Amino acid sequence: MFDKFHEECGVFGVYGHPDAANLTYLGLYSLQHRGQESAGIVSTDGKKLHCQKEMGLVADIFTEDRINKLPGHAAIGHNRYSTTGDSISINIQPLLVNFALGGLALAHNGNIVNAGLLKAELEAYGSIFQSTMDSEVVIHLIAQSRLATLHERIVDALQHVQGSYSLLLLSEDQLIGIRDPHGFRPLVLGKVGEAYVLASETCALDLIDADYIREIEPGEMVVINGKGVASSFPFKKAEPSHCVFEFIYFARPDSVVFGQNVYSIRKEFGRQLARESKVAADVVIPVPDSGVPAALGYAEEAGIPFDLGIIRNHYVGRTFIEPRQNIRHFGVKVKLNPVKDALKGKRVIVVDDSIVRGTTSKKIIKMIRNAAASEVQKRVS
Amino acid sequence: MFDKFHEECGVFGVYGHPDAANLTYLGLYSLQHRGQESAGIVSTDGKKLHCQKEMGLVADIFTEDRINKLPGHAAIGHNRYSTTGDSISINIQPLLVNFALGGLALAHNGNIVNAGLLKAELEAYGSIFQSTMDSEVVIHLIAQSRLATLHERIVDALQHVQGSYSLLLLSEDQLIGIRDPHGFRPLVLGKVGEAYVLASETCALDLIDADYIREIEPGEMVVINGKGVASSFPFKKAEPSHCVFEFIYFARPDSVVFGQNVYSIRKEFGRQLARESKVAADVVIPVPDSGVPAALGYAEEAGIPFDLGIIRNHYVGRTFIEPRQNIRHFGVKVKLNPVKDALKGKRVIVVDDSIVRGTTSKKIIKMIRNAAASEVQKRVS
Amino acid sequence: MFDKFHEECGVFGVYGHPDAANLTYLGLYSLQHRGQESAGIVSTDGKKLHCQKEMGLVADIFTEDRINKLPGHAAIGHNRYSTTGDSISINIQPLLVNFALGGLALAHNGNIVNAGLLKAELEAYGSIFQSTMDSEVVIHLIAQSRLATLHERIVDALQHVQGSYSLLLLSEDQLIGIRDPHGFRPLVLGKVGEAYVLASETCALDLIDADYIREIEPGEMVVINGKGVASSFPFKKAEPSHCVFEFIYFARPDSVVFGQNVYSIRKEFGRQLARESKVAADVVIPVPDSGVPAALGYAEEAGIPFDLGIIRNHYVGRTFIEPRQNIRHFGVKVKLNPVKDALKGKRVIVVDDSIVRGTTSKKIIKMIRNAAASEVQKRVS
Amino acid sequence: MFDKFHEECGVFGVYGHPDAANLTYLGLYSLQHRGQESAGIVSTDGKKLHCQKEMGLVADIFTEDRINKLPGHAAIGHNRYSTTGDSISINIQPLLVNFALGGLALAHNGNIVNAGLLKAELEAYGSIFQSTMDSEVVIHLIAQSRLATLHERIVDALQHVQGSYSLLLLSEDQLIGIRDPHGFRPLVLGKVGEAYVLASETCALDLIDADYIREIEPGEMVVINGKGVASSFPFKKAEPSHCVFEFIYFARPDSVVFGQNVYSIRKEFGRQLARESKVAADVVIPVPDSGVPAALGYAEEAGIPFDLGIIRNHYVGRTFIEPRQNIRHFGVKVKLNPVKDALKGKRVIVVDDSIVRGTTSKKIIKMIRNAAASEVQKRVS
Repeated sequence: MFDKFHEECGVFGVYGHPDAANLTYLGLYSLQHRGQESAGIVSTDGKKLHCQKEMGLVADIFTEDRINKLPGHAAIGHNRYSTTGDSISINIQPLLVNFALGGLALAHNGNIVNAGLLKAELEAYGSIFQSTMDSEVVIHLIAQSRLATLHERIVDALQHVQGSYSLLLLSEDQLIGIRDPHGFRPLVLGKVGEAYVLASETCALDLIDADYIREIEPGEMVVINGKGVASSFPFKKAEPSHCVFEFIYFARPDSVVFGQNVYSIRKEFGRQLARESKVAADVVIPVPDSGVPAALGYAEEAGIPFDLGIIRNHYVGRTFIEPRQNIRHFGVKVKLNPVKDALKGKRVIVVDDSIVRGTTSKKIIKMIRNAAASEVQKRVS
Repeated sequence: MFDKFHEECGVFGVYGHPDAANLTYLGLYSLQHRGQESAGIVSTDGKKLHCQKEMGLVADIFTEDRINKLPGHAAIGHNRYSTTGDSISINIQPLLVNFALGGLALAHNGNIVNAGLLKAELEAYGSIFQSTMDSEVVIHLIAQSRLATLHERIVDALQHVQGSYSLLLLSEDQLIGIRDPHGFRPLVLGKVGEAYVLASETCALDLIDADYIREIEPGEMVVINGKGVASSFPFKKAEPSHCVFEFIYFARPDSVVFGQNVYSIRKEFGRQLARESKVAADVVIPVPDSGVPAALGYAEEAGIPFDLGIIRNHYVGRTFIEPRQNIRHFGVKVKLNPVKDALKGKRVIVVDDSIVRGTTSKKIIKMIRNAAASEVQKRVS
Repeated sequence: MFDKFHEECGVFGVYGHPDAANLTYLGLYSLQHRGQESAGIVSTDGKKLHCQKEMGLVADIFTEDRINKLPGHAAIGHNRYSTTGDSISINIQPLLVNFALGGLALAHNGNIVNAGLLKAELEAYGSIFQSTMDSEVVIHLIAQSRLATLHERIVDALQHVQGSYSLLLLSEDQLIGIRDPHGFRPLVLGKVGEAYVLASETCALDLIDADYIREIEPGEMVVINGKGVASSFPFKKAEPSHCVFEFIYFARPDSVVFGQNVYSIRKEFGRQLARESKVAADVVIPVPDSGVPAALGYAEEAGIPFDLGIIRNHYVGRTFIEPRQNIRHFGVKVKLNPVKDALKGKRVIVVDDSIVRGTTSKKIIKMIRNAAASEVQKRVS
Repeated sequence: MFDKFHEECGVFGVYGHPDAANLTYLGLYSLQHRGQESAGIVSTDGKKLHCQKEMGLVADIFTEDRINKLPGHAAIGHNRYSTTGDSISINIQPLLVNFALGGLALAHNGNIVNAGLLKAELEAYGSIFQSTMDSEVVIHLIAQSRLATLHERIVDALQHVQGSYSLLLLSEDQLIGIRDPHGFRPLVLGKVGEAYVLASETCALDLIDADYIREIEPGEMVVINGKGVASSFPFKKAEPSHCVFEFIYFARPDSVVFGQNVYSIRKEFGRQLARESKVAADVVIPVPDSGVPAALGYAEEAGIPFDLGIIRNHYVGRTFIEPRQNIRHFGVKVKLNPVKDALKGKRVIVVDDSIVRGTTSKKIIKMIRNAAASEVQKRVS
């Protein structure tokens, strides 16, 4: 019924800056690793919400011309993760609607587990959905709520919602950030000049020279407008439950999420691995790029030299045309190629932090074994 | 008169394979680092040359549909480096022409220094140039030559040419590779099954599981057709003169160029730097990605821990929209962000292998100093 | 609040034909004169509705590939008239939504006068509008209705609607056609093989070799499904009130609308004009193309020769770039040029059936006067 | 070897006007009927030639932005007729080259019959062709000529050329117009303000308010530059031989070609037909649009009423998707539909001026017979 999980999205919002859309573009730029399928920005000039969104990468979508079509002092943006299934333009966030209280835009990182049930109920009362995203139920719950203010309606709406959400909402005159009671997904608050910023990770603050203030706390709702930041905790308390994949793989190593630096955590993971499973070897190599910190930690702890035994090709595109005549362990080779000189004749420890089913790992191991077994560069005549 | 130097281009050719265009596409894919402005492939089915070329990256240009429009058993391809100036579609290589002896395609890595003079002469005899590339003089010299065979005409033509060239030529029935007498640019010969391959670097051989045979030697001309590979040295001998930037910056670390592995050379550069200018420090960090091997070499030689103190954003696009309100040392921050936890309170040695004018270096140094001087993550309230 | 009147749109629907989308494409093709801004088709394969729509002309929008993405035995289509204002893609019809009863598509020719009021009410109950079209209120009224069947809900919805509508609705399993109680806009029923067709004008029937059965009557609702055509008159009777512009200008001369052939009516208008205001003249000319029938009628009645004194350029595009240095009465000349030989020295009666404010007419008159006053082709040396 | 005949192209040139490219755009606009496949303009600012060309219609290709990229006081343009075969972008005219004497652009209406022979000779001397157009031999003959000035080289070149040509050439500082010794294709000279204009037909002069001066005569060469118009007759005299299809079908009825108004000639053709083959009938109808003048002439001469018995759909696109289930005489119906009311029960004379193989005519006749035999609009229940 709904799109697959898209827990790995990035959200960014700013209130109180004359270049709000441009800052949001920069924020999405630095959060690009959280979603490469599509991106969008909605800005407000106090009277009207403006929207630009499209399939593709932030740097390709947002031209100067497009940024200029996003006037105003506040904006929110969203990077969507590439899922199979409904990769269609109606599912690009932020979702922007007009309803009884005016305009409203929503950017969501998380997963609403009872969305199917809520949708069926809402439709029975006449709601018409525009997308196949679970996030849209939040919008309709707000529109159907009989309470008076946007603030009350949002709280009313989210009380029906189960699941994870780091959520940004933008109306004509306020920016609202909410983190689910478990705090499953990250959300941080920053400040640049007089403007406030909300973002999935601190790397987005760094790029725009914003200072990091603090995390939005689990179950917290912040309302940012001309009067500053108002915090409240309108939801029932719940057990904190952070997603471990943020540390392992999702977040950028230079970010702080859940109050800790990702690079340091990853390096410590490597050290711990060395303590738990020490092996005699000549060299420790990472599967680049994400495996580098853990491999460095392992190498330091184990006292074995670190080397960059595999080179990653950063120009890899979305699609890839394989020749009809098969080539050995192809999928891996497009991205990764061993440095034979650095591996030949050596016992190699390889550290990978993004093993999903292990099929790729097998190919990587085979590739490394071949390189380690190779004579200098093999010559044929 | 001509386009700027485009010495950093990549060339790839294959003869004798049913998937020639697809292999060439893969070869260009792995040589993408040598040129990102445009790419093209010309294939031959024995009767006719077929061409597909465009501005952009290999992965974006070549769809399955386009590969299917490149039938035949032999092909050459070219990656063009982004120069300012004449970045126009008529300058995309391979150059493909029809002349008295049939079709002829050319892919050139190098720089012809007397191209202006040759062009003026050729035009005086009625030649009409189609592009503003120096490479086109080679084509017209071949067309104007009064000798009988393509082979003779090529030798005749190149005897007038001064400068550097690793050159691939494709006619309906043969693939020709030539390296200038100085051997300024690299060119290697490989074999995949029964097919022969010519490429700028060995990383292109690795991707398609081709075996590395040897370098094409300075001043050598190889003619590859149904009878195999015929080698000759038709030009006057010259002093060997390899371009040092191939080792420092152009080539991929997993490649072998000029007979040596690039990664090992770069690491040795780092070691040598440590020997020449040793400094007391707490950590050695690279400017990623290209600075990693030299930084590792330096760290090993100096006995100082290596760390990844700067993270590179690999999603950076071609254009970038800066906010009107300036942000400190912006240009660098889009690509690079320090890991404050890894730098704070430390004396840092930073290794960069691609300093051009040093303006970027100043910004990087300032960024690192700020991070080293930072308290934990700075908090504001 | 809503888009400008778009009374001149064209609608077409077919039920019971294996090539339903292709027939609809042909129908829109022949109704292109009723709207050139955008076009769309929604088809049903019995389980799911499929939609293709875009800005532009039918012949440009619908490729074979797109038609193939519209499977099924029933379809509706819409040509939208170019209005200033909200010419945006969300306003392209057919409108397609999913709601509690399943999928529903709507194509509307007409103008709902109380749409603003209805929209405000619907939003108060939580409806979220997707477009700025008055037509969308019909969809939401249907979704909000508490009645059980689609048929009942449509009748319920339209009882709140005031204004003009020739309306086609398509669900997964039925095609519904409705004409407002006044019958302001045309709608005809035809048959091709075993399939039934609904269209704004009979010229759409002619193109697909469909037989003309009859007009849908004012206030009539026809439901077409596997059981055939079921007619009902669920609305209160009203005074018939046909839009006279259909005869004068909107409809194609080869069509039958409101039971009469447009060409014959226009010719009769010309005859009547000759009776009412006879003038002595040497020649009667039309402003082509629409003025031809009336001019022929005038000429016949008045006994004055008819001639084609003005030639129309049919390649005129949407935009037009005028030179900075002005040219006399330019706007007209792009489309129309006099045949000086046919006019020189003559007293000319010119018949125009599409005068709006008369500014264009003044330019045409001046152009004709100049041509009539011209010597042979003026020569300069 | 070469492209099919493209005798129906349109050419336009202007010298001495600050809006030269804009006037050329207007000229091509009004000559669009002579070629709809592609169009291009080359302008000169005295120092450099500027080019914009593409597949498609003039109104679609030339945006304000593109016109602004064509600065200067002189320009030539070309409309290319849609041929099957080599409809590729390299064949769009004007051809623009740089050669020993500078830049040169060429726009050609006609057909060079010995182009194959000339091309083989030119290639033997080292020429490299860029297109598959016969017109390109003229450019290479000019480049290969050993004479000193452009003017001399053009005469030298054309002395080798056999066939038809109305030719415009533009260098940095002059506009040259040439008509072949037989005068097979039309070319007229006009004046707008102080600027001179060359065009295929006078309708292009009318649109820009230029005065018609005279035809360029068969075998005449006019050189237009800052000194005015210099005429010469450098070629051997030949029998005049005008292409009759210009009168019958190619040219616009409001144009003067070969010194005569096309509309009047066509009407006279109709009168002559009536004299030669008189038939008793109730009505004379044209196959629109081109058949109207001849039908009017026939009707006048025969004393039979003229009527518009067939309506043409002017929105017909290039491609057309037919339903799998055949529809009777389809190809014709997309464009033409009978007005049954005007034909029923009548004996009909139909005048068509563009019969090629007669297959379309058979379908039209059948369509008219059906309409004439029809009762009022046929009703089915």
